[in-house]
Amino acid sequence: MKKRKICGWGYEGDDASPVLVEKISPYLGALYGITEKHAIQPKRTEEIRIRSPRFVLSNEFGGICTSDKLERLNHSYGKSYRDLWRAMNGLFDNPPDYVALPQSEKDIETLMAFATKNRIALIPYGGGSSVCGGIEPTDSKAYIGTISVDMRHFDKVLEVDKVSRSALMQAGIYGPAIEHALKPHGLTLRHFPQSFEFSSLGGWIATRSGGHFATLYTRIDEFVESLRMVTPSGIIDTKKLPSHGAGPSEEALICGSEGVLGIITSAWMRLQQIPQYKCSSTIGFDSFQQGVEACRILSQSGLYPSNARLIDSQEAFLNGVGDGAQSVLILGFESHNHPVNHWLDFAENIAVMCGGIKLNKDSSRADNQSGTWKKSFLQAPFLRDVLVQKGLIVETFETAMTWDRFDQFHRAIIQTAQKAISDYAEYGTITTRFTHLYPDGPASYYTVMARGRAGRQLEEWDQIKHAVSAKIVEMEGPITHHHAVGKDHRPFFEKQRSELFGRVLKASKSTLDPAGIMNPGTLIQ
Amino acid sequence: MKKRKICGWGYEGDDASPVLVEKISPYLGALYGITEKHAIQPKRTEEIRIRSPRFVLSNEFGGICTSDKLERLNHSYGKSYRDLWRAMNGLFDNPPDYVALPQSEKDIETLMAFATKNRIALIPYGGGSSVCGGIEPTDSKAYIGTISVDMRHFDKVLEVDKVSRSALMQAGIYGPAIEHALKPHGLTLRHFPQSFEFSSLGGWIATRSGGHFATLYTRIDEFVESLRMVTPSGIIDTKKLPSHGAGPSEEALICGSEGVLGIITSAWMRLQQIPQYKCSSTIGFDSFQQGVEACRILSQSGLYPSNARLIDSQEAFLNGVGDGAQSVLILGFESHNHPVNHWLDFAENIAVMCGGIKLNKDSSRADNQSGTWKKSFLQAPFLRDVLVQKGLIVETFETAMTWDRFDQFHRAIIQTAQKAISDYAEYGTITTRFTHLYPDGPASYYTVMARGRAGRQLEEWDQIKHAVSAKIVEMEGPITHHHAVGKDHRPFFEKQRSELFGRVLKASKSTLDPAGIMNPGTLIQ
Repeated sequence: MKKRKICGWGYEGDDASPVLVEKISPYLGALYGITEKHAIQPKRTEEIRIRSPRFVLSNEFGGICTSDKLERLNHSYGKSYRDLWRAMNGLFDNPPDYVALPQSEKDIETLMAFATKNRIALIPYGGGSSVCGGIEPTDSKAYIGTISVDMRHFDKVLEVDKVSRSALMQAGIYGPAIEHALKPHGLTLRHFPQSFEFSSLGGWIATRSGGHFATLYTRIDEFVESLRMVTPSGIIDTKKLPSHGAGPSEEALICGSEGVLGIITSAWMRLQQIPQYKCSSTIGFDSFQQGVEACRILSQSGLYPSNARLIDSQEAFLNGVGDGAQSVLILGFESHNHPVNHWLDFAENIAVMCGGIKLNKDSSRADNQSGTWKKSFLQAPFLRDVLVQKGLIVETFETAMTWDRFDQFHRAIIQTAQKAISDYAEYGTITTRFTHLYPDGPASYYTVMARGRAGRQLEEWDQIKHAVSAKIVEMEGPITHHHAVGKDHRPFFEKQRSELFGRVLKASKSTLDPAGIMNPGTLIQ
Repeated sequence: MKKRKICGWGYEGDDASPVLVEKISPYLGALYGITEKHAIQPKRTEEIRIRSPRFVLSNEFGGICTSDKLERLNHSYGKSYRDLWRAMNGLFDNPPDYVALPQSEKDIETLMAFATKNRIALIPYGGGSSVCGGIEPTDSKAYIGTISVDMRHFDKVLEVDKVSRSALMQAGIYGPAIEHALKPHGLTLRHFPQSFEFSSLGGWIATRSGGHFATLYTRIDEFVESLRMVTPSGIIDTKKLPSHGAGPSEEALICGSEGVLGIITSAWMRLQQIPQYKCSSTIGFDSFQQGVEACRILSQSGLYPSNARLIDSQEAFLNGVGDGAQSVLILGFESHNHPVNHWLDFAENIAVMCGGIKLNKDSSRADNQSGTWKKSFLQAPFLRDVLVQKGLIVETFETAMTWDRFDQFHRAIIQTAQKAISDYAEYGTITTRFTHLYPDGPASYYTVMARGRAGRQLEEWDQIKHAVSAKIVEMEGPITHHHAVGKDHRPFFEKQRSELFGRVLKASKSTLDPAGIMNPGTLIQ
């Protein structure tokens, strides 16, 4: 079996393409002044020492749990910058004591009963791709230890309902396995977060992951038909229904619960037919502002593009699109049912009326461009490993704002990030793109890349992260649009939600998890 | 000021058009054998006696509360068949002791503090159009009395954000006042439940009301940008945002809470631009089955019609559409942005491929047909008053089911209703339409009309209502798609939701309303 990397994305041996690394290396020097001295020398696994498990497991857990060092290392961190930096530097102060690999709901119930009785924290683990401390063990002294509960054996599509276009899937299944199982039926979940290859259905649902579609069905929540979750108090199993209006939504409590209420074990998911018609267009704008206005009108047009990604000039250039002077809007429509050129024509007209210039147009049956794009999109986390190792501080912020306040909000974030970079690091950039569009505002996504001082990058990252996050919340933006809260965003989430809703969440947790063993420290205190 | 009717829809003096009544009267005889002997002779208000308030209010409530007999009668019941029947028969055993008419959140807080201290139940009241016992006072002995809190003074659109297309509205505002305030801005909420003229924004949100759009934005929830709710524990005020992914949705807890957690006082609502382009088409099907299949493919097509109402042959005929042999699909597209004929062409092709026959087509700029349709749609509750008074038992059931199980589900409901009609009443019909379409299934809406035995209609209604509701839940359908739970559907809701979610709802209520004064008996026990 292929082994996951301890400090980096994907499997051992799978790295960013050397050609790509070669291509970007000159930019790192030119743009950020990165030299050899900034580089981190990753520790080899053999050099890393971790403490022994702090408690002993009885025999009944022999088949479920392991204390294997590699497994414990792999379950210590997610994939945030902080996580990568600590892993590369061999810092594993608080690994889980065991990793559980349950095969059945019964196994999970047994674990929960044991953990409840013995004050052990359980951490639901899907693909481990959290970038906000969502799967890191608690350091609270209230627990005698932690077990990371890896759902990898819940990896099947159990049933396909072609008529209603939905499928019952186990929660530990990863993106590629889902698509592989659905393809023979002509169906697809079409949920492609950047973590697609190494994240799980249950993780997507627990974190309200952001999906493929730029409009309408922006988040995994939209595709949840029903859910099954094991909690320390019992099992929640919601009905497979297209919709209902009886009371507050039961699924809405589970979506975004980040493992603090229980472990999602399976879900009926709404599917798409594989698109047969597809067309896309790239539009350039001399100013980002013009692109924003085009996105606003587009988002309110009722045309519902599947892709509508506005990328500012600098980020576009770094991604090999545009000339570095123009902001770029990538527009796409797709359908299994009908040609979509007509839709694209209307959308292009809107963009052109706002000052856009058509750069190219690709109108064809599907699968021409999508493969290329998908590959390059999924390369990004591999590439980040290279950047981090070379000494670059890399962080992303994803938020949302209504159109009326967007300009002000956007300017404040850019200015705050620029100031934080110059205050805390040496030199860097902040770039912007829109990942999703709503009729009342965009989800904007910011990427900070900065040259830090050798050996002090983590501290600098922390200061930049804090400054920008605080500004987002001060300007009334959400601390996350789809990366979740975890432990890292929790203090900001507390400022964003109402105090009473915090109490409701805690009351819900007390009901479902009276001993407070589920993922403590995440989402709520 | 115009006075609302005590037993019937709308204002005193506004009745169903005599022409319409004249037109349907022969059918009542022919179809249901309704004669004079079945008719109910409504009691005059002067004949109705109600008990005195069971507790005394201190002077501080002089400006907020009234014990006026008419007000108390008007706040005793909603508008279900049971409500109409009891009102017509002058049965008002359990009126609220007072009706409060708060002018400010401060007034509401004062009421809640008083009610908490004195074990008085408060019932949030918008337009009073509940058809499931949602605004009827509790008969629990745990309270010394009840106050119906009528939000009619919260009737303003406070702020319009044209850029993001949203508006801040007070929760007591009725449908027509919303549209009147938005029209000068070229905007519309476009939420037209049948109760539109006599229901409020807060009521729609609290009950997850069904909206204008047949696809995509089917329920008021979709248009809620942020909410403000006064609870006995304090105020919840959520952020005005296009979207966020931080934790479970706070708004989702409030939408559908039916007044048991607090009183919604205002909301930022997402709006539409007033449509300029509109086209529609009517398609006939020789079998209802064919129409269902057309709806399924349409719902999964990505065309998103604003209207897609499949009506079975009998219901179509009773509504003056079709020849009584064909089921009818009314299809409509609309846009402020672009002509929609192209969309309709694709949709019609789907219907024709499934065996549909185009009956007519109206392609025009907006406002031609919509006025006529809207008028006739809004006439229905007035007409129901006439039917009930003539002695007809009238009830609707609205539910939803995934496409794979729809045929079986539908047959079971029809058979159960037919059996219940013949077991409990004398003679009647059950007809079907689809009100909303989801990619994984339809929201189906059933209308039962039956001739009952003179004086025993309420008992017979109750038996039919129970038999069909029990079958819906037995077949795993939701007890409501958009009429809400109230007190009448609560036993069925309890079977539909998970037991643990019931406990979470109760824990949420204990947090926000520790004394349990808010709308007791509704939604949860």
